Amino acid sequence: ANVAPTHADPGGVFTFKARGVLDVDYVHFAERAGAYDYNDGTGFRRARLGFEGTAFKDWAWRLEVDFAGNVVAVQDAYLQYNGFKPLTITLGQHKAPFGLESNNSDNFNSFLERGMFTNAFGTAGAERRIGVSVAYLKEKFTFTAGLFGDNESIGRSTGAALTAAPDESYGANARVTWEPVLDTGRIIHVGASGFWRAGLKSGDTDDGLRLSDRPNIRVDNGNIIDTGVIPNVENLYYLGVEGTAVFGPLSVTGEYGHLEIDRFAGFRDFSSDGFYVYGSWFVTGETRPFRNGNFDRIRPLNNFSNTGGTGAIELLLRYDQLDVGDTPVAARAGNDAHSYTAGANWYLTPNFKLQFNYIRFAGSNTPLDPVGAKTKGDAVATRLHIDW
Amino acid sequence: ANVAPTHADPGGVFTFKARGVLDVDYVHFAERAGAYDYNDGTGFRRARLGFEGTAFKDWAWRLEVDFAGNVVAVQDAYLQYNGFKPLTITLGQHKAPFGLESNNSDNFNSFLERGMFTNAFGTAGAERRIGVSVAYLKEKFTFTAGLFGDNESIGRSTGAALTAAPDESYGANARVTWEPVLDTGRIIHVGASGFWRAGLKSGDTDDGLRLSDRPNIRVDNGNIIDTGVIPNVENLYYLGVEGTAVFGPLSVTGEYGHLEIDRFAGFRDFSSDGFYVYGSWFVTGETRPFRNGNFDRIRPLNNFSNTGGTGAIELLLRYDQLDVGDTPVAARAGNDAHSYTAGANWYLTPNFKLQFNYIRFAGSNTPLDPVGAKTKGDAVATRLHIDW
Amino acid sequence: ANVAPTHADPGGVFTFKARGVLDVDYVHFAERAGAYDYNDGTGFRRARLGFEGTAFKDWAWRLEVDFAGNVVAVQDAYLQYNGFKPLTITLGQHKAPFGLESNNSDNFNSFLERGMFTNAFGTAGAERRIGVSVAYLKEKFTFTAGLFGDNESIGRSTGAALTAAPDESYGANARVTWEPVLDTGRIIHVGASGFWRAGLKSGDTDDGLRLSDRPNIRVDNGNIIDTGVIPNVENLYYLGVEGTAVFGPLSVTGEYGHLEIDRFAGFRDFSSDGFYVYGSWFVTGETRPFRNGNFDRIRPLNNFSNTGGTGAIELLLRYDQLDVGDTPVAARAGNDAHSYTAGANWYLTPNFKLQFNYIRFAGSNTPLDPVGAKTKGDAVATRLHIDW
Repeated sequence: ANVAPTHADPGGVFTFKARGVLDVDYVHFAERAGAYDYNDGTGFRRARLGFEGTAFKDWAWRLEVDFAGNVVAVQDAYLQYNGFKPLTITLGQHKAPFGLESNNSDNFNSFLERGMFTNAFGTAGAERRIGVSVAYLKEKFTFTAGLFGDNESIGRSTGAALTAAPDESYGANARVTWEPVLDTGRIIHVGASGFWRAGLKSGDTDDGLRLSDRPNIRVDNGNIIDTGVIPNVENLYYLGVEGTAVFGPLSVTGEYGHLEIDRFAGFRDFSSDGFYVYGSWFVTGETRPFRNGNFDRIRPLNNFSNTGGTGAIELLLRYDQLDVGDTPVAARAGNDAHSYTAGANWYLTPNFKLQFNYIRFAGSNTPLDPVGAKTKGDAVATRLHIDW
Repeated sequence: ANVAPTHADPGGVFTFKARGVLDVDYVHFAERAGAYDYNDGTGFRRARLGFEGTAFKDWAWRLEVDFAGNVVAVQDAYLQYNGFKPLTITLGQHKAPFGLESNNSDNFNSFLERGMFTNAFGTAGAERRIGVSVAYLKEKFTFTAGLFGDNESIGRSTGAALTAAPDESYGANARVTWEPVLDTGRIIHVGASGFWRAGLKSGDTDDGLRLSDRPNIRVDNGNIIDTGVIPNVENLYYLGVEGTAVFGPLSVTGEYGHLEIDRFAGFRDFSSDGFYVYGSWFVTGETRPFRNGNFDRIRPLNNFSNTGGTGAIELLLRYDQLDVGDTPVAARAGNDAHSYTAGANWYLTPNFKLQFNYIRFAGSNTPLDPVGAKTKGDAVATRLHIDW
Repeated sequence: ANVAPTHADPGGVFTFKARGVLDVDYVHFAERAGAYDYNDGTGFRRARLGFEGTAFKDWAWRLEVDFAGNVVAVQDAYLQYNGFKPLTITLGQHKAPFGLESNNSDNFNSFLERGMFTNAFGTAGAERRIGVSVAYLKEKFTFTAGLFGDNESIGRSTGAALTAAPDESYGANARVTWEPVLDTGRIIHVGASGFWRAGLKSGDTDDGLRLSDRPNIRVDNGNIIDTGVIPNVENLYYLGVEGTAVFGPLSVTGEYGHLEIDRFAGFRDFSSDGFYVYGSWFVTGETRPFRNGNFDRIRPLNNFSNTGGTGAIELLLRYDQLDVGDTPVAARAGNDAHSYTAGANWYLTPNFKLQFNYIRFAGSNTPLDPVGAKTKGDAVATRLHIDW
């Protein structure tokens, strides 16, 4: 029994299933330093509808579209062939190999938003892109590598003259994961990711790059990290490491990422670093499951109900940091940001949860405030999450 | 048997169903007074796809998105808990309590468009919004109250500098309904609604409010009612009453609404009033059903078919009026509008109908014509309606 | 067994099915003459989700929406009555009668893009539009005629003052098809189409018309054919013929279209002609099926699999041409274009295929280059196609 049924033909050769995600957010901001003014309010973070299935046993496919913000964003849109086990070949738009929080389903991530470096570096060279990848999947070991263009959001030129608009960027991504220990309630996971990307563009600026993110919450669109548009970028090189340890209801997870921005001869190269680390405790005794190098769905020991079921309750604490201060765009030089987040997730059932994040964020020379100023603030954020 | 099947697991604890609505309109306008020129043509009024379900018996959820006009508009997007009967708790985007035509499913409304005051006041403080509500539902009595922010269409800032864009508005809504008589073919229904709203904004104008509507038809976007953007609004207070009486194939329905616009000290307050009343006659003998304080689906006694079934035929007559003439925006002072509508609905089957509305509308000092002019016209409008 | 299951109630009176299409493209351009610079890259050509069903035996309905390019485009959205066999009445947005490649499902067309005249003339007066049609369908003969307005993409005014925006266009379309021979592996098909259209507009230009298309590939939006906006157009008259012959694994298909642009008194009329012809060979021995005057789905004799199935392989060769050189817009006078396409389709299964097109295109006085210049180039294009 599940929220959305899977239709299987009698022979089990075909399956078909509707998919969807709903994330409804409310956030209240309290500005502590700086003249910026984030907006309180509500919003959809995700509102997705789609279908997926398997066909002729070895084929799998998916098409899912997001409508949050009343804007269309095609998500997974791929065909997969699983006939050469343990290899899986995927063609179409899918997540490029890159880090734990990014490659993990967002349905199973712990906080409202991922670490800032994951978003800033992932938008530059990973996340969902059109391409082809090959995954080697064993129970405790995975290796995935692929070639990717851009994604639907950033691929098209907008209004620029035909001669001025740049080609799409292209690159290669890989990730390796290993779980030396993988039992229920006892997991050690380590992994590493890397990517290279060239032919960059930022909007219609050829060879341009812009790294940016918001302070772990998105109802307001104001970035706390922003390199500005960096011109004359030739290549991006990324290397990151990840690890998690699960001991019964407790877990500790962290990632570190380093991005090299290689510019054409005569222009200064630069690099950026970010990391996050967090601890999780299931007060109600659940333990986080793992599958194919990523976290899997939490199933409460007792679903919430009017007959005494409480659901699962998870308490969380995170430190998150990203430094882009070395950016060659003068106005943005010295920009960095960090945040502390206290979180509580209330899993009513396996598919419904309420999330609470208290975020204390701070940044230097952010785009939110005049050059050189300090930006500080708190955000109280809640989310209703449904997926099927 | 139904147009869209409901999938239920053997235990009946989970159900899942696809949803959708299609409304295809054609309208021809005949201008009778004024220099305006409405456009004839076709258009989608609704084109919606979504899913809904129940889970673990007491939970219900829905996500539906509209694509009419080739624009995304997330509709219902909520999670509901029904474990504390007769209470229902709803969290997410859903219709705020407000009046009969607004809280009724648009699939079951009688005319192409609702009364003008329902649209103008509902957009200001009701319709679908992100929030939480609690409903007390008995067979002949309902009381629903909730707290709401904005909806996805009006929540985000657009291009304004971070310091200039206002927070979302917030408010509370309630509706009570009572059916002293509730038998098949004999119904008396009365109800009342109220809301309060503060922290208003109109676009990126803080404390701004704009009330507007079109003359009971939407293929052309020209408003016949428009207060302009009223600045310095502190609070909105709404009170409305509603009633309907069903006697076999006949029914009479009406609503009256009063909106108080409370402005900051030193600025003139003002108020607006609107109402509609209509009669309905099912020539083919059907009678309108009612459920939880709202009209329910019409099921023809004989579906239309090539073997002599005629479907159900409903004839309608309505008077509709809205006066915003007291608006403090000088150019719009004196703006009011009214319309007479003769309607015919041909229910081919419970889920397919053809609708015809002949609308004679008139307004004073409308935004369609130069200040001070009279606007008059006729619209011949048709609609194909499908829902599942 | 199929990729998406059809749900039928026990009596067979209702059916319900999810629908969808995914087309993911990659294209690389090589410019051979001219100063233009097409962009290489990836993109979605189609990303569609929808539902369809039958109800009460004689009714059929469909709603499908496209999200390619992260833009909403409502596709089929209609109700159909089949109770008066062999007549089918369709109301709502559907394909206006017009030619083989246009009326054929794009899922079953042979090349990545249809012939240029089909796109340019079809956008002007056919493709999906809101209207009503009646089809007379016999096994070897079809006749379809209908009245149509605009479609959702071109129907609404954008920002123009109410008095300036034009009404929608309107017109009538018809197509007749006949298969004197219709056996498996042996088909002769001929057909003819015509339309008339008046009340034209191009954007908000009343009585305006613009014919345009890209060189058989769409990742880059640059047109190789473009009449410019022709003012003072009173009527369009189209006449086209089509034919195909299938001999086992071989087939030959072609269409020719002629469009008369009739302008108001005092303005020069003009006309435009286009055609394409192509041959197809199934190396793996399949033969193209036909149904209701259109090509039907290819089912490989052996699906691709890890146990030796190869799928179906089709080789293709096409010549395509469109001449709009007689356009009264001076800057565009002399604009024509033609292309040679070598294609290969690899049908992995009935619903999954990979497509490869090598396109050599050339044009005179195209909008891509300075007035009077020659434009030449090659495109290597691939597509992943999934439909269900």
